[in-house]
Amino acid sequence: MSQHRLVNPLVRNIRALKRGALVRQAVRIEEEIKQGMKKPYNEVIDVSRDNPHATGMKPMSFSRQVIASCIYPELIDSDKMPLDVRERAKTLLECIGGSVGCYSDTIGIPIMRDSVSDFLTRRDEGVPSASGNIFITHGSDHVPTLMQDSGVLTPVPSQDFGNALVASGATAVPYYLDGQQGWRLHTEELQRALRSAREVCDPIALYVINPGDPTGHVQSRESMEEIIRFVYEEKLLLFANEDHQDILIGEGCMFISYKKVLAEMGSPFSDAVELASIHSASKGFMGEGGLHGGYLELVNFDPSVQIEFDRLISLLGLPIIGQLALEVMLNPLQPGEPSYEQYQEEIQHIRETLVHNVTRAFEVLDSLPGISCEPINGGASMFPRLHLPHIAIHQAKEEEKLPDFFYCSRLLEQTGLCVCPGSDLGLPEGTYHIRLCIMTSVDTMEEVLRRLGKFHKQFMKDFS
Amino acid sequence: MSQHRLVNPLVRNIRALKRGALVRQAVRIEEEIKQGMKKPYNEVIDVSRDNPHATGMKPMSFSRQVIASCIYPELIDSDKMPLDVRERAKTLLECIGGSVGCYSDTIGIPIMRDSVSDFLTRRDEGVPSASGNIFITHGSDHVPTLMQDSGVLTPVPSQDFGNALVASGATAVPYYLDGQQGWRLHTEELQRALRSAREVCDPIALYVINPGDPTGHVQSRESMEEIIRFVYEEKLLLFANEDHQDILIGEGCMFISYKKVLAEMGSPFSDAVELASIHSASKGFMGEGGLHGGYLELVNFDPSVQIEFDRLISLLGLPIIGQLALEVMLNPLQPGEPSYEQYQEEIQHIRETLVHNVTRAFEVLDSLPGISCEPINGGASMFPRLHLPHIAIHQAKEEEKLPDFFYCSRLLEQTGLCVCPGSDLGLPEGTYHIRLCIMTSVDTMEEVLRRLGKFHKQFMKDFS
Repeated sequence: MSQHRLVNPLVRNIRALKRGALVRQAVRIEEEIKQGMKKPYNEVIDVSRDNPHATGMKPMSFSRQVIASCIYPELIDSDKMPLDVRERAKTLLECIGGSVGCYSDTIGIPIMRDSVSDFLTRRDEGVPSASGNIFITHGSDHVPTLMQDSGVLTPVPSQDFGNALVASGATAVPYYLDGQQGWRLHTEELQRALRSAREVCDPIALYVINPGDPTGHVQSRESMEEIIRFVYEEKLLLFANEDHQDILIGEGCMFISYKKVLAEMGSPFSDAVELASIHSASKGFMGEGGLHGGYLELVNFDPSVQIEFDRLISLLGLPIIGQLALEVMLNPLQPGEPSYEQYQEEIQHIRETLVHNVTRAFEVLDSLPGISCEPINGGASMFPRLHLPHIAIHQAKEEEKLPDFFYCSRLLEQTGLCVCPGSDLGLPEGTYHIRLCIMTSVDTMEEVLRRLGKFHKQFMKDFS
Repeated sequence: MSQHRLVNPLVRNIRALKRGALVRQAVRIEEEIKQGMKKPYNEVIDVSRDNPHATGMKPMSFSRQVIASCIYPELIDSDKMPLDVRERAKTLLECIGGSVGCYSDTIGIPIMRDSVSDFLTRRDEGVPSASGNIFITHGSDHVPTLMQDSGVLTPVPSQDFGNALVASGATAVPYYLDGQQGWRLHTEELQRALRSAREVCDPIALYVINPGDPTGHVQSRESMEEIIRFVYEEKLLLFANEDHQDILIGEGCMFISYKKVLAEMGSPFSDAVELASIHSASKGFMGEGGLHGGYLELVNFDPSVQIEFDRLISLLGLPIIGQLALEVMLNPLQPGEPSYEQYQEEIQHIRETLVHNVTRAFEVLDSLPGISCEPINGGASMFPRLHLPHIAIHQAKEEEKLPDFFYCSRLLEQTGLCVCPGSDLGLPEGTYHIRLCIMTSVDTMEEVLRRLGKFHKQFMKDFS
């Protein structure tokens, strides 16, 4: 395939994900069902990415009511919405120039930066956050533009962050999380990855995801301190994706931000380590992936970077609705407000659903041969390991397929269940995993486990 | 200022616009008003960009009702919305997976590509459009990523498209529209620009904006045919920004798309010229700049480009709400539907307001010394020329300011009216213009003209 002169050669380096092929397969299957073809299932269930509203999780009512009222302000002047909704919507509408149709400022709608920094100061129990260090983004997919010969140490397994880096001109250098020990991050592995990176590029940053996704690992303070010492010594920037900070599942599990740990470590770390952390309304209780609202906070960066980020963001512009979702997420309802109880109930319901889903998933997985899973303490996914029989691996290779994709594609065809192969998340040939989103309704999760369990037992039998 | 290692050097080449300085000045002024400082005006009016909902234009009720109902589906099951709104919202919700919180497919929500191609086929009276050639975008700011040494012939005056090109790695090569002849585009000028481009880069594309913005020029079929012949002979791609296709002001003025003209020219043009055209819900009657929904249609491009565009767009993801706005724009209400009459009235109102605003603007401008304006046939802006007195130009240079910025900054300080200096749109030193959005309410336009008229007369007196 020749390169069209319109397209930057970098784009050619973006890795095509197998999930794309599975989604196309799912579309074809749904078409067949629509045309009346008989299948042993009525519909496809896609848990191959965390897309909680598509798998039965309900959106938070308060934020939806506020956003709907901003979109159609007649709702504010009526009694169709609760009083706190109308008040919040009125305040927000004033901030955005009276209409969601107005262009957003480059730096976000006027209150956004302050909202984020107030939220961060509260969250980190007083560690200061300046609004000038905040950048409003399109959600968690928004990455800075990097130089062509620079490298970023990137965790494996992880989502397709590598691709965004590649398109920006940088190289994603993999470091491997420990799949035998709950997907912990070992500093020795970082050192190995850094040495190997230096052979091919100029490594400038370490990317970490905490709580981990799809690994379910939540880092301890000690581990975070170790990482901060490592980037300090190696003069790397630290990118922390803290998108899943709301989603803690393990008993007694706590989220601490890198910002807070860094501040509490004191000099020389707290004045020197350049930290960029991201969070968004796409994940967590909000789960508003379709709305595209998030932020990036920079710590210890040179002010010149700020100016250049502003220029960059100004080129694309920011959607207003994602910012409204983010604003509501950052300023939750307080006790006494009319919608507070419903709000708390909804959060509680999501929490209980998650704990239930994980418990049930382990019950089912434990009963199956040839599948195992590290504990899940946070995040929206589980990432069980498949111990595939040799015959299955051989058969996959005969068909020129990666073994995990071979498994996923059969699972989808036979049961209508779509999960993501671990190879999409960077795992090298030799160990096999699948990712499935656990932010689903209880009913959906039961159906997911029923389909997976039945298929898996038969698969192991067929290839034993 | 040193270059931070995080930031791609290309970003440094983005031109800082003077409008940014004016917006900061406006923020400072509003702060002073809030603190009780006495000014001869109560508020800033910003018409420096087309942001119609911020200047008194009302959003289209039907689309807002549909979107609000998608956001908060309880509205669908109640009698709070008209029946056609509820039906449309129900259909759309099904398409997007049941919630606006669901991630959009890379190629847009399932019906989008078909919606766009159906719209285009209707608009172009049968010229075929294949959904596979459609790309859903973030609105009009979404540009393809170009190679570093390639060039794009870009109209002057025009918005900051040049900057998006620069950040993508390409060079914007200016060609000048004829400010003496209604901002017509002359092919000889294109030839001159192309020759000069070939000295610095590899020119691969011609960018045109029709209806013109801020120029108000609407191209004739003959002019478009000339341009198509030019790009055919010179083997350039043609990028057509047709964002303002709804907004025709001149009597009897018609919009014809480049796609249609190209098809009707027949072979060899219709099979060979690579045409990329864009349109969005940010402009026109919708004016939903905050929602970020648009599309790009490719004609005669190699299928490989399509695959690469898909990869690119998949990195950032598409906001759902902008797509909903786009869908409603592409499928307007039909006679007989309950909301049809209100819908027609609202469009009629916008049309009449625009014609009124332009008529009034010319009445006022004609009464002022040292200002003139080419006719306005389409688009959302006017772009009058300032014949600044020598003393004013001299004074501006003393203060190390561009003369048009000097004028705009004083206008803003003394009257609270914010307009955009022509130098921001690429005009070279020597002729001076201001851009102002004409998509405002009648009252806002009256106030804009009152402030501008009073200031301008005094300015001309002070510097004569």
